Amino acid sequence: MPEIRQSMATKEWVIIATERAKRPKDFISKKNSEASIPESDAKCPFCPGNEKLAPPATFEIMDGENWITRVVPNKFPALSPEGERKRKYDGIHRYMTGVGNHEVIIESRLHNRFISVMKKDEVLNIVKAYKNRYTELAKDERIEHIIIFKNHGAAAGTSLIHPHSQVVALPLVPQAIRSRLNTAMRYLDDNGTCVFCDMSVMEQKEKERIVYENDDFIAFCPYASLGPFHIWILPKRHMAQFSEINEPEMTSLADSLKIVLTKLSIGLNNPDYNLVVKCNPTDYIKSDFFHWYIAIVPRLTKTAGFELGTGMFINVSLPEENAEFLRSINI
Amino acid sequence: MPEIRQSMATKEWVIIATERAKRPKDFISKKNSEASIPESDAKCPFCPGNEKLAPPATFEIMDGENWITRVVPNKFPALSPEGERKRKYDGIHRYMTGVGNHEVIIESRLHNRFISVMKKDEVLNIVKAYKNRYTELAKDERIEHIIIFKNHGAAAGTSLIHPHSQVVALPLVPQAIRSRLNTAMRYLDDNGTCVFCDMSVMEQKEKERIVYENDDFIAFCPYASLGPFHIWILPKRHMAQFSEINEPEMTSLADSLKIVLTKLSIGLNNPDYNLVVKCNPTDYIKSDFFHWYIAIVPRLTKTAGFELGTGMFINVSLPEENAEFLRSINI
Repeated sequence: MPEIRQSMATKEWVIIATERAKRPKDFISKKNSEASIPESDAKCPFCPGNEKLAPPATFEIMDGENWITRVVPNKFPALSPEGERKRKYDGIHRYMTGVGNHEVIIESRLHNRFISVMKKDEVLNIVKAYKNRYTELAKDERIEHIIIFKNHGAAAGTSLIHPHSQVVALPLVPQAIRSRLNTAMRYLDDNGTCVFCDMSVMEQKEKERIVYENDDFIAFCPYASLGPFHIWILPKRHMAQFSEINEPEMTSLADSLKIVLTKLSIGLNNPDYNLVVKCNPTDYIKSDFFHWYIAIVPRLTKTAGFELGTGMFINVSLPEENAEFLRSINI
Repeated sequence: MPEIRQSMATKEWVIIATERAKRPKDFISKKNSEASIPESDAKCPFCPGNEKLAPPATFEIMDGENWITRVVPNKFPALSPEGERKRKYDGIHRYMTGVGNHEVIIESRLHNRFISVMKKDEVLNIVKAYKNRYTELAKDERIEHIIIFKNHGAAAGTSLIHPHSQVVALPLVPQAIRSRLNTAMRYLDDNGTCVFCDMSVMEQKEKERIVYENDDFIAFCPYASLGPFHIWILPKRHMAQFSEINEPEMTSLADSLKIVLTKLSIGLNNPDYNLVVKCNPTDYIKSDFFHWYIAIVPRLTKTAGFELGTGMFINVSLPEENAEFLRSINI
């Protein structure tokens, strides 16, 4: 019989198709691997030489005269960096001015230098850029929530190959985030502890869903994973804001990202994936109920009417098997 | 400047990219139209002659000795029809036995007879099947929520071409539905009315987002549409459960579905779409705050890290323009 598992953090239910679950190897991607992508592309807006195509950089890490990691405002931003945050009422309708920030983090000079083939120092530069932009954008009084994310591959919604992440700073707290915060608050009321801290302790004890672990982070396939090879990278220390990450933790995070994404790339032949840094709203500087984490969502299955209509997912794989498969890949 | 609109029904925010919005014609699908699909396929499990491949029918509409519309249990159900609904505790983990129902509604004998090319009577048979299965499955004491949906085309998550819908009866109320109910309840507390009824009155008055209207239903692109050509078909009469639909309303719904889906198919060259019937939990027999509706979600854009991380959407089109485009298509 299928099992309907409940996430302790979100209280969301997921149907785990235990009986007809696919094996980890069934999810190996059939597409060409990263090897076929060239080192540079004259038409790519993120390749060196095309810097003038984008607005001036907001953050750069340099190696002599060359940038290594570079952040620029998105040329076609989802939200406008200029203007006042204002609620408007138009009869029964409510809207808000679309102010905010939308930046692109160019992760490497090279068109084909994905995290899975980077050295750890190069990944550390990305983490530094994440921290800088999170910290800087959070200072804007109009901003209430910041999301950092990465779309890798066409199925993950990107048309640009050059390795990059994005940051969007929002003038509001999305409903889905509010609902997650409420669930975590209720857990604190019931248990006196942060549910994410408890989850970290539980996963370290049970071990069977761990993908990788170091001093500061634990990477695992959650008990109630929404799909095949969903992975959370969770800081062991309670941190409300991404900007609280310290120097040793930044190195540990670079290490975790590098190893987890390399395991995914080797194990499943460079699958398309989204990566998301989930944080508290920027105003919750010291929230004792919610702490940030990174979710990696490989795009191995398609969502359809069931997911759209219920917000629930059907996972056709076993988190424990997926974790074991990734754990056993040596790098 | 972009506009961040809030849905009055769900309180969810959506970024409407007012300035760089695409025009309706930019969303015309480039794929082959339905014309290239044959009338029958010997390998299709839903085509006449292959009835033995599926379990016995749970509902059939006959024309002499031939079935016209046919409902069968899913051969590979997401949930098991047999067994007891039971909560289980395994240490810190919580799960539930995966009991429920999962059926397939085969909409036509013909492999290529989509709603957009059906006569209204044929669509009425689908509506009858929806009502019968909703009513029957809701009688099961283990069931708390029923979702009826349809995946049309590969981008909408189906690999089977033969026109069909699905029904899943769940032993729980999904978190996303609970959150929607809470929002609607709060609206009732504030205003004393059902937000869906108020929305229907508002759209009938404002007119600019209407796609189609008849005596019993209004089809429109919601003010805070999550994406291009999102359409709601909303009953004008307050009905908590889909099973409350009466005979004249069934005919009106068939008429609405036929016309709206034909307009979409003609206007955008048979785009892939999901269709979902959103209802109250089955136990809420007389809920005065939430009433059922149908959402049609054409799969014209891809969701990526931003949507995954925030639950918010960026709509690169204007609901008012999309509605006008569909309204102007004569059938």
